[in-house]
Amino acid sequence: MGCDKYTIGIDYGTESGRAVLVNVRTGEELATAVHPYRDGVIDTHLPGSDKPLPSDFALQNPQDYLEVLRETVPAVLRESGVAPENVIGLGTDFTACTMLPVDKAGMPLCMHPEWRHNPYAWVKIWKHHAAQPEANQLNKTARQRGETWLNLYGGKISSEWLFPKIWETLNKAPEVYAAADRYLEAADWIVLQLTGVEKRNACTAGYKALWNKRSGYPSDDFFAALDPRLRNVVDSKLSRDIYPLGTRAGSLTPEMAAQTGLRPGIAVPVGNVDAHVAVPAATVVTPGRLVAIMGTSTCLMTLGKEERIVEGMCGVVEDGIIPGLFGFEAGQSCVGDHFAWFVEHCVPPAYHEEAQRRGISIHQWLEEKAARQKPGEHGLLALDWWNGNRSILVDVDLAGMLLGATLATRPEDIYRALIEATAYGARVIIEAFTSSGVPINEIVACGGLPARNRLLMQIYADVTGREIKVAGTAQAGALGAAMFAAVAAGAEAGGHRTIVEAAQAMAHLQNVSYKPIPAHKAIYDQLYAEYVKLHDYFGRGANDVMKRLKSLRQQVLASG
Amino acid sequence: MGCDKYTIGIDYGTESGRAVLVNVRTGEELATAVHPYRDGVIDTHLPGSDKPLPSDFALQNPQDYLEVLRETVPAVLRESGVAPENVIGLGTDFTACTMLPVDKAGMPLCMHPEWRHNPYAWVKIWKHHAAQPEANQLNKTARQRGETWLNLYGGKISSEWLFPKIWETLNKAPEVYAAADRYLEAADWIVLQLTGVEKRNACTAGYKALWNKRSGYPSDDFFAALDPRLRNVVDSKLSRDIYPLGTRAGSLTPEMAAQTGLRPGIAVPVGNVDAHVAVPAATVVTPGRLVAIMGTSTCLMTLGKEERIVEGMCGVVEDGIIPGLFGFEAGQSCVGDHFAWFVEHCVPPAYHEEAQRRGISIHQWLEEKAARQKPGEHGLLALDWWNGNRSILVDVDLAGMLLGATLATRPEDIYRALIEATAYGARVIIEAFTSSGVPINEIVACGGLPARNRLLMQIYADVTGREIKVAGTAQAGALGAAMFAAVAAGAEAGGHRTIVEAAQAMAHLQNVSYKPIPAHKAIYDQLYAEYVKLHDYFGRGANDVMKRLKSLRQQVLASG
Repeated sequence: MGCDKYTIGIDYGTESGRAVLVNVRTGEELATAVHPYRDGVIDTHLPGSDKPLPSDFALQNPQDYLEVLRETVPAVLRESGVAPENVIGLGTDFTACTMLPVDKAGMPLCMHPEWRHNPYAWVKIWKHHAAQPEANQLNKTARQRGETWLNLYGGKISSEWLFPKIWETLNKAPEVYAAADRYLEAADWIVLQLTGVEKRNACTAGYKALWNKRSGYPSDDFFAALDPRLRNVVDSKLSRDIYPLGTRAGSLTPEMAAQTGLRPGIAVPVGNVDAHVAVPAATVVTPGRLVAIMGTSTCLMTLGKEERIVEGMCGVVEDGIIPGLFGFEAGQSCVGDHFAWFVEHCVPPAYHEEAQRRGISIHQWLEEKAARQKPGEHGLLALDWWNGNRSILVDVDLAGMLLGATLATRPEDIYRALIEATAYGARVIIEAFTSSGVPINEIVACGGLPARNRLLMQIYADVTGREIKVAGTAQAGALGAAMFAAVAAGAEAGGHRTIVEAAQAMAHLQNVSYKPIPAHKAIYDQLYAEYVKLHDYFGRGANDVMKRLKSLRQQVLASG
Repeated sequence: MGCDKYTIGIDYGTESGRAVLVNVRTGEELATAVHPYRDGVIDTHLPGSDKPLPSDFALQNPQDYLEVLRETVPAVLRESGVAPENVIGLGTDFTACTMLPVDKAGMPLCMHPEWRHNPYAWVKIWKHHAAQPEANQLNKTARQRGETWLNLYGGKISSEWLFPKIWETLNKAPEVYAAADRYLEAADWIVLQLTGVEKRNACTAGYKALWNKRSGYPSDDFFAALDPRLRNVVDSKLSRDIYPLGTRAGSLTPEMAAQTGLRPGIAVPVGNVDAHVAVPAATVVTPGRLVAIMGTSTCLMTLGKEERIVEGMCGVVEDGIIPGLFGFEAGQSCVGDHFAWFVEHCVPPAYHEEAQRRGISIHQWLEEKAARQKPGEHGLLALDWWNGNRSILVDVDLAGMLLGATLATRPEDIYRALIEATAYGARVIIEAFTSSGVPINEIVACGGLPARNRLLMQIYADVTGREIKVAGTAQAGALGAAMFAAVAAGAEAGGHRTIVEAAQAMAHLQNVSYKPIPAHKAIYDQLYAEYVKLHDYFGRGANDVMKRLKSLRQQVLASG
């Protein structure tokens, strides 16, 4: 082990940052450290202020990102006992689009005393949803102008992405927009802090900022059509220099080395995104395999040799996940959240008491009871839209549905039906891929859910008709960031030449695998056909009752 | 009070019998007594036997009916202090169709030692559901032959009714059919026990045995088309002598007088049915008013001057409720059961704890929380088919649906949505009546629910757009039976000449009334339109997913 080299990956999540120290030759994870953000998600009022934030705001304090470095890197060095001279690189991944305005020196505007009290000067994180009006207008204009790039994003831009968020600031706080020297993804900002070098990465640019390797950004004319003040937004507030993933952005600065305990000069790759960096960490670097990152929501990522237009996907970006391939992203907005909601709000005391008596969680108890059933036995069917539908309908105004309930329906029946509904939702996405010429032969699951719920994994295998393997790591984001750090360090320094080589060495699967049970699949094929019929009936305009109920609800609430 | 006269009404329910002693002049209820049936509902095995009953069986022991007389009548005499010489009549009402085979002397076959072990010799109660195959065949044959009486029963005969139950016995136990001198409704059997006189009543004959005042029973040819052995079923196993409600069947026998403590010779009216007898007890003896008997399920009864064909009603019978008028019956198969199911299986511990802290029931706590909302605020819509749909779709294979759920949905939201769903279901029935020329201007509620849930009553008023009054009695069945006893006794004995006069004297409304709130009604009109759209989509064949799910469930369960 004396000659082994190591890299550190840091995964910047929604509530905390997580570091993992990894052996570059074997992928062994020697130490992990997590540091919660002191200010967390800022959604009620700014730190040190009583003034309520506007609704749908979700901000962060960039100081928290720096604190993660100072806390977690020394911790993993200490815990692993690895000598700093054997750590050859430090990589990062971030939630996205998580963006901020900075001054000429790259300092966040919110760190300037004169802007500190303006919420638009802070980091808007991915789930900041206040730019929906701008997103709606952007989509309308793009459709009217026949902008062809729109198809690369499933026909609809999310309010979570970069341009709606910038435009929102221009509309609501033009003084902040004017004061910003430029806007950066947090993914790129943290790399700038580590290296002193600003190099924007291709992943956030491609998936969140409408950048395309061949055609660049949307035209200035398009931005002018949105708002004349936006005509030069790319050149004045962003940059057209975009770097492939795995590129060495620069070297760790002496100052950052001092703060982290690492050696100055080690490799730092360009920024990356949590879901995307998890793909090679789940061993997937070639087409034909789908990575399902299953947590509160699910990201479904796959690779292709050619650009394909797939209905309702989040985006297809050349080199966006693995250099040399097209990266496809789709998503389900309510998976783990769905089961958590059910367990918190819909399970009676007797079940909680029984779980407690058995010393297991209520999730485990429901799983155990639901696992005794055969497919089709509970007689239920659900639409998994408790939090809208991200893919393939791209419609936040859709809502959940449960059908088939009788007086004999019990909590484990509904619990199983909700799991099945998310599996049907995943199959809709898989079939959208395959029918568009993006083959999916096998699934690799990672994230928090696979380890916690074997029934869920088997149901996904039965419903999708595909074998599901499980990633070896419990922290695919941080591992992926460490793998890209090994690529940035390069083979000469003891790292890897490409992310494909890094994946071969550092990424592993668990021994467990879930194979479809033919008798189950036959029943689930029938149920899936019912799901698709209802999916299309409620989701494609035949009966917009869900939207009308939501609209009525908003009217009623607004009427005071 | 010395010259006041009294009658006793006995309401034979599903689990127990209930007697009430009533002042004939004022309707004051002086005493009540309830006696649970010793053998209850017999649905697993016969008393004294280990042999499992076939599925869907629901039997009773007629001895339990006699025990009710011996226990409750002395109890109400004792409690009220009323002298037996001032009790001028004893009336009864029964669940229906609740039927039994008897020997020549009127003794139930199940009381003969040689038949005691044969389940087909016992009383089949209303919710005995094993005759569904016979009901299906009967409906098919009636449709094929264009039998016009089918329209009087909403186009479909229930498996709960008389002929499917008789035919089931002929098919499964022909020896019992052969041994039966005749079949009686329990409503008529108990009157035979009290008086020694067999007089079949027009209510059960009309609503449960397809008898019509003008055209009699279906033809012998029809019965022969079902099964040649049934050609003479009416003449050999029933009777064509049917008596109007309120008719004095006979006088209390000395033997029964001795057992009950009443005077021999007092008036006993012909039998009656629990829901139907509740109509005059709720003050309704004229057209234009709807009686909603709201308990685990709901019966909706109204009166008309003319026969009308109303989609999916349970039946229209001339003189079937009030002599001289057409009585219309419709029903909802899941109302109180619906809320009970939800509270038992879907409400988390925190709500139970909070209800307990406040010293209220969980129903009350949910009602209180749900009452804080405005219509439309929860964003949900449900179809109230957890136990199928009785009216107007007449389809037991339909199932429940809840739509519009989000991660913000809470138990009180669903609770309110389920209440609203049953109100929409009631409105569908009301609109079926009014669009067929049966006017409904006002609703009178009785049964267990109105007193327990004010929110429910207000929602019903808002959804139906009609004022809802509440019957003064908490035991409309027993009061109605006592009222008919006063009619059978006649004015000369201190009773009443007609049920209309009896209702004027003895039936009252509470002071409380629920009036539609216009702003609520406007929103509920929108939501009702959504309900109707889904009601028709899932209930009228556009998407039979509920039936397919149920059929799949049965296949899966049958496959072991």
